[in-house]
Amino acid sequence: MFSKCPVSFKILFKNKKKKTNKLLQIILNSGYKDVLMQSVVNPQNISFGNLHIEPKKFYVIAGPCSIESPEQFRETAAFVKEHGASILRGGIYKMRTKPNSFQGVGAEALQWIAEIKKEMAMPLISEVTDPRQIPALNDYLDGYQVGSRNMYNYELLKDLGTYNKPVLLKRGFSALLDEWLNAAQYVLNGGNTSVLLCERGIRTFETKMRNTLDLASVAYLKQHCNLPVIVDPSHGTGDRNLVAPMACAAVAAGADGIMVEVHPDPAEALSDGFQALNFENFKNLMSQLKPFVEAAGKTLVSYV
Amino acid sequence: MFSKCPVSFKILFKNKKKKTNKLLQIILNSGYKDVLMQSVVNPQNISFGNLHIEPKKFYVIAGPCSIESPEQFRETAAFVKEHGASILRGGIYKMRTKPNSFQGVGAEALQWIAEIKKEMAMPLISEVTDPRQIPALNDYLDGYQVGSRNMYNYELLKDLGTYNKPVLLKRGFSALLDEWLNAAQYVLNGGNTSVLLCERGIRTFETKMRNTLDLASVAYLKQHCNLPVIVDPSHGTGDRNLVAPMACAAVAAGADGIMVEVHPDPAEALSDGFQALNFENFKNLMSQLKPFVEAAGKTLVSYV
Amino acid sequence: MFSKCPVSFKILFKNKKKKTNKLLQIILNSGYKDVLMQSVVNPQNISFGNLHIEPKKFYVIAGPCSIESPEQFRETAAFVKEHGASILRGGIYKMRTKPNSFQGVGAEALQWIAEIKKEMAMPLISEVTDPRQIPALNDYLDGYQVGSRNMYNYELLKDLGTYNKPVLLKRGFSALLDEWLNAAQYVLNGGNTSVLLCERGIRTFETKMRNTLDLASVAYLKQHCNLPVIVDPSHGTGDRNLVAPMACAAVAAGADGIMVEVHPDPAEALSDGFQALNFENFKNLMSQLKPFVEAAGKTLVSYV
Amino acid sequence: MFSKCPVSFKILFKNKKKKTNKLLQIILNSGYKDVLMQSVVNPQNISFGNLHIEPKKFYVIAGPCSIESPEQFRETAAFVKEHGASILRGGIYKMRTKPNSFQGVGAEALQWIAEIKKEMAMPLISEVTDPRQIPALNDYLDGYQVGSRNMYNYELLKDLGTYNKPVLLKRGFSALLDEWLNAAQYVLNGGNTSVLLCERGIRTFETKMRNTLDLASVAYLKQHCNLPVIVDPSHGTGDRNLVAPMACAAVAAGADGIMVEVHPDPAEALSDGFQALNFENFKNLMSQLKPFVEAAGKTLVSYV
Repeated sequence: MFSKCPVSFKILFKNKKKKTNKLLQIILNSGYKDVLMQSVVNPQNISFGNLHIEPKKFYVIAGPCSIESPEQFRETAAFVKEHGASILRGGIYKMRTKPNSFQGVGAEALQWIAEIKKEMAMPLISEVTDPRQIPALNDYLDGYQVGSRNMYNYELLKDLGTYNKPVLLKRGFSALLDEWLNAAQYVLNGGNTSVLLCERGIRTFETKMRNTLDLASVAYLKQHCNLPVIVDPSHGTGDRNLVAPMACAAVAAGADGIMVEVHPDPAEALSDGFQALNFENFKNLMSQLKPFVEAAGKTLVSYV
Repeated sequence: MFSKCPVSFKILFKNKKKKTNKLLQIILNSGYKDVLMQSVVNPQNISFGNLHIEPKKFYVIAGPCSIESPEQFRETAAFVKEHGASILRGGIYKMRTKPNSFQGVGAEALQWIAEIKKEMAMPLISEVTDPRQIPALNDYLDGYQVGSRNMYNYELLKDLGTYNKPVLLKRGFSALLDEWLNAAQYVLNGGNTSVLLCERGIRTFETKMRNTLDLASVAYLKQHCNLPVIVDPSHGTGDRNLVAPMACAAVAAGADGIMVEVHPDPAEALSDGFQALNFENFKNLMSQLKPFVEAAGKTLVSYV
Repeated sequence: MFSKCPVSFKILFKNKKKKTNKLLQIILNSGYKDVLMQSVVNPQNISFGNLHIEPKKFYVIAGPCSIESPEQFRETAAFVKEHGASILRGGIYKMRTKPNSFQGVGAEALQWIAEIKKEMAMPLISEVTDPRQIPALNDYLDGYQVGSRNMYNYELLKDLGTYNKPVLLKRGFSALLDEWLNAAQYVLNGGNTSVLLCERGIRTFETKMRNTLDLASVAYLKQHCNLPVIVDPSHGTGDRNLVAPMACAAVAAGADGIMVEVHPDPAEALSDGFQALNFENFKNLMSQLKPFVEAAGKTLVSYV
Repeated sequence: MFSKCPVSFKILFKNKKKKTNKLLQIILNSGYKDVLMQSVVNPQNISFGNLHIEPKKFYVIAGPCSIESPEQFRETAAFVKEHGASILRGGIYKMRTKPNSFQGVGAEALQWIAEIKKEMAMPLISEVTDPRQIPALNDYLDGYQVGSRNMYNYELLKDLGTYNKPVLLKRGFSALLDEWLNAAQYVLNGGNTSVLLCERGIRTFETKMRNTLDLASVAYLKQHCNLPVIVDPSHGTGDRNLVAPMACAAVAAGADGIMVEVHPDPAEALSDGFQALNFENFKNLMSQLKPFVEAAGKTLVSYV
């Protein structure tokens, strides 16, 4: 029964003095953490469909918060493609704080979603909220998004580790960097080395923004692990006026890409409309972004 | 397809001016939240096995963080029963930050766990970490614990809403009170009205304690909803020296019970030993607790 | 010039390897902190006027947030005295976030304030916001309150260290326990050993309460230093409905006293009316508090 | 006596229903805040000595955390000037958490500091920690820094409002944007319109960095007030490896300048050595920064 407990831990506990020395514990923990972080290594060959993720490139993932209808999804996809996005996003199953809020179009919409994706010839990522959804989703998606609410859902992460599709792992609302990397490790341990980390803001006392976008985490991660790091300035600020400057700042901090929410008419969006960019906003974002991508010595990947 | 979107939301979005007025949004959101909180009402007949939860009573839930062996579990259960606990706790599936940490004895141990529970004639609650575990667990447990990491795991909560066993819902690491109550609503909406809320500390800047135990949340919840509220001073402080004073403070703040971790030899515990009480500590806790339970006008429920 | 740098620090930096080892630094810092905390010792003979602060006693400090007029102050003082308060509080100089908010009645009111205090035969504490106010205040007050905004105002603390009146040091909005104790040390180092610590809530992500009252800090401080600890549930929650349960919880956590805001008509108060108790509320608070003071093995000090 | 209370407030309280409506209060507060923010307007003619602060320019403020000796200060100043800094910084009075830490060289060093400044022909800013220091400092400094610990020290801010030197106001450890802007207003109200805001990181649960640098605050401030905004990535991260990427991100977020700590030998620094750049680091920072300053459409102001 104890065989599940790793040897190092047994020794640790055996040798530990009865009266816990908190300081010693901090040291041991820190040491252990660093070892773990070093094991988050060498993910290779991350591909969304035919799109291979490479260093020195920059990727814009864009689309609606929720996929609402064929028209809304097609129109948005066509626009973001035309203006420089390389990967589509769109919620099918939504995680909503309130049980009576719109919960997404669900599995019944997968057929027409796949058709629009094919039409666009772009890869699509969408959020998975339950391990039991994976079999149904796997034929239709090019990558899975794990939302902040599920970063600690280790059973979901373990299951995703047994598939070979990229996993975009969002940081939990108040997840320590160590916890986030350890969550990534749950996927990696299953054999799936295609993990991308997505900084999307953390919860602090400040109320002007929905979250506090922690860009130092991006710089830190780029120096301490080699997973690609994506930044979501839409959730990261909850304010469409802050999306463009934070997207530019994400590039400068070292991010490999951004993920933004775009809607033909944000005021009519079924979820999070207040933070969605309209088409004009998205176009402006892309033109503001380009000089910073160049300044970072990177190339924007696009179909235009 | 839009039929899933509640009517009130459609109207809200229809009438909204194109340029989002953030202030208006705050008001509308607040209003909606309050309505929701009023719907968290009148759960009745919460019973752990034969033990019926009543107002003006106080319940001590105790046991090891992880059930490690028949000897460790039996010895702990017998001791806490003898000194005033009314419900047993013990982790079978463990949620661990690090994928290589001890993950619990798992399903194979359910048989002997059930035997010890029967021997003790006490109800047992344990954590469920995946909806797919419920069918196997349901014959053995008297209540489900949903841990902080799974408070936002709405698929798990929906499933638990279709069973008739009590759900002890821990607050997420940085969950707003509204989010916590809405998570409870996910269970209630399924038809299961046996939900208890468990305050276990929130994540703040302070580093001396593992978490900051938010006892004002207890007082707030007792004034705004009628679900029983339990306090976990073990996780809430992460420091065994602080467990007894915080347990007493929980009583004074209006809690209906506490949940504490007890281990025959905390230094040898396979998880969270630093915050577990040893037997002597537990005995002292119970004697410190009693005058405060009386001062609160409540009766401690026990088998002694 | 370097003579101001303590020897221990010089050695520390001399011996340090060029490439900073962050872990080592944590250890050294922690060590240093613990030493400092041990030096926060044996304050004795803390007296507010004739009122000597003793262990096993419990003190209620009450009065208006701001002293507004002779009538308002006299009426409030008489009522709280009659119902069990032992020390008066009342702001003369107010710290206000907005420069156009009411800033307090100021020095010109000291004369009539002193007369009412004499009439009541109770000690009075009030906030000092600038070291240059001390000479004028010193003849009129029995103790100084340092507000959260000034916990890091070391020049003010150094000056208060040279007087012999008690200093009630509130915790900063986001002050670590170590920082708070070090702030106390600034006063103690000046020779004034009459320091009381006042927990008044910290700033977190939660928005339902004005602050998150950290009662574990009270238990921690009672175990790690021997300064009296007071709890302010008025600022600690910002919600008058939560003041009484949090006051009771403060007793159970080990506090030596509470400080609460009382106003004859909170809706007309010039500052923080939303968290002030009216007279009826205060009376109820005192009757709820008493059984918990007894449960804690303490005696309420009062003039009734 | 009530004449100090602004008329608007009196009306507000008069008309308010007895039973406080919390929601109404939020609205009123928010409204009031927005008015206040609109009044933070049109500061003009901010000059550090002969250096006039202009839009579309970018300023690097650099120097040691503490000025320690003539040699250390001269050497650092010469190096940062040669590599693109336009303003010198250096602590003379230090705010230290621990009363026994090095507290700065103090007033006696002002003479040789002024000589080195003249030699370098660069403006100098330094922290003021007590209003009583201003008269002595005013002949020697070209700008005052108010540290995070003193952001709420309104008496200091009021005094600085009566001088005509620029005030670089750092954000408090957990200051809301509204509180920060209101603190700026304390200076502006005194007649001094030369205020710069300095984002230096806020306190969160994350422990890998000293603080969480909130760059969205920079974008927000640039859209809501017209005070120049400076970013301090040294304190903002507490990790010299993160200073350069965060400086670049600050430019992209819209900052008007950065302030960084540089030391000839960080391992020997008397304060905060772990976050100081050495000369090589500073040179690299400047070369990384330049393309981002250009991408932002700005010109680096320097003497080279």
